Amino acid sequence: MILTVTLNTALDITYRVAALRPHASHRVSEVTERPGGKGVNVARVLAALGHEVTVTGFAGGATGRVVRDRLTATPGLVDALVPIGGATRRTIAVVDERTGDTTQLNESGPAVTPAEWAAFQEAYGDLLAPASAVALCGSLPPGVPVGAYAGLVRTARAAGVPVLLDTSGEPLRRGVAARPDVIKPNADELAELTGSHEPLRATLDARRRGARAVVASLGAEGLLAATPEGRWRATPPAPVRGNPTGAGDSAVAGLLSALVERLPWPDRLARAAALSAATVQAPTAGEFDRGIYEELLGRVAVTGEVSAA
Amino acid sequence: MILTVTLNTALDITYRVAALRPHASHRVSEVTERPGGKGVNVARVLAALGHEVTVTGFAGGATGRVVRDRLTATPGLVDALVPIGGATRRTIAVVDERTGDTTQLNESGPAVTPAEWAAFQEAYGDLLAPASAVALCGSLPPGVPVGAYAGLVRTARAAGVPVLLDTSGEPLRRGVAARPDVIKPNADELAELTGSHEPLRATLDARRRGARAVVASLGAEGLLAATPEGRWRATPPAPVRGNPTGAGDSAVAGLLSALVERLPWPDRLARAAALSAATVQAPTAGEFDRGIYEELLGRVAVTGEVSAA
Repeated sequence: MILTVTLNTALDITYRVAALRPHASHRVSEVTERPGGKGVNVARVLAALGHEVTVTGFAGGATGRVVRDRLTATPGLVDALVPIGGATRRTIAVVDERTGDTTQLNESGPAVTPAEWAAFQEAYGDLLAPASAVALCGSLPPGVPVGAYAGLVRTARAAGVPVLLDTSGEPLRRGVAARPDVIKPNADELAELTGSHEPLRATLDARRRGARAVVASLGAEGLLAATPEGRWRATPPAPVRGNPTGAGDSAVAGLLSALVERLPWPDRLARAAALSAATVQAPTAGEFDRGIYEELLGRVAVTGEVSAA
Repeated sequence: MILTVTLNTALDITYRVAALRPHASHRVSEVTERPGGKGVNVARVLAALGHEVTVTGFAGGATGRVVRDRLTATPGLVDALVPIGGATRRTIAVVDERTGDTTQLNESGPAVTPAEWAAFQEAYGDLLAPASAVALCGSLPPGVPVGAYAGLVRTARAAGVPVLLDTSGEPLRRGVAARPDVIKPNADELAELTGSHEPLRATLDARRRGARAVVASLGAEGLLAATPEGRWRATPPAPVRGNPTGAGDSAVAGLLSALVERLPWPDRLARAAALSAATVQAPTAGEFDRGIYEELLGRVAVTGEVSAA
């Protein structure tokens, strides 16, 4: 079982409107809802790839109930979210049918109490025992200490479970110092962590800061990886067009999936890059197109060098 | 007990954002939620005036549970909403903190099945027995027949319960023909019903179409009433500035409240006009400012003539 942690889960709502105009009143022509937050998105892709996945983090209120009901109804996913008193946040994506543009409204999430944070840490320890890998994903809700991911990384390492960290800012900086097995920053997150806007230099620097492996997602340029086994770049066969929402989460799912299957790094990166591109090209934001994924998988170029033993 | 009917209840959500820009991503700085739909708003004002109020209509899904929980927690309100399979709609008001402007996103509401509509009609009949008055408010959700209000007006009249109808379009046209005791159209609704943009003429015409009394809400110009007892105009002492959201619902609450207290028409109109103005001036949309209401109540000018007996 793969464990994903989403401390700031969300109910992701998409509205379609004819044309969004500030100060006007709009009739919403279509409403869709699904569980969200980065770790939940990673779990959905892992389940679609055939893995058993347990989802933990926090959920509360009426929105939290919807999130849990939907997770439970998804084949391959097990809901192990920890209940909290506050209500799970909503995110609202308003799609303008005229232009196709999306306007995003994100609630910040409920405050987590010290007792709820303690309850989560206990549940997390129990869930690690049967886990083959764990992903720690996304932002921290109010009330969770900024060093939270560092602690969760240490607990996973002590349990001998490979741990991937995908967050940003100070939680990433502190988490990296706790020596996670993999981090997957995007270009901005990597620059913020290292102070360098030169991806190769920044990737190597992030390893020096504590991450065993760094996989930087560089948008249309694919992935750049620095690992103990070597350095690689994975590039899709052609620039992909579409909606980048969730592409990073699909890359994380690809890395984790291939890690637990004990594939070598170049195969992990090819899977991650193909899933990411297949997500950008899918008609629904955050989903991946299986046909495109399978077609791309053999066509991702992975170039690089193996480290001297 | 006063009964209010809201067939298309809502969970009204207000978001505050620094500045709303289409195609951008926004952090919501403040989220407020409350039960909504016109009849629910009327009930809230009636309860604040000290009346016992029963709220019926439909509620379903996670949003419906929130609506019911909040209603139950409001002193003076009794929740008698009829459960449905679909989820109660949300409305989202996005307040731009820079300009104060509001952008509105309204879901259309769940489809009501024939069995659910039949269950409502039975519950409605039972709830009328102890009611001193009933208000039928707002739009019809998908699945409810366009003649719904006409039937509900007839049932109330057969039970001897005074009935106020506040809706628009074809449901208003059909409802008026069933002879409600009071209708409270705004200027647009009155023009749509009668074809006349001249309020006095249109008000008299609406009476000829079947309404025993017509109280037209004319925004800053106050109320214009045509009743079997006479014709009046009720005007606040000075033009009011603020947010007109809910002003019409407060006027309905004022009319109903004064009706069950058997006050004469001029007093009913003064109360409705004062409540309406105190709602426009309140800091929170849809609430009324009690101090302003009490101060205005004696200063509303009611002019007109009593009909010849």
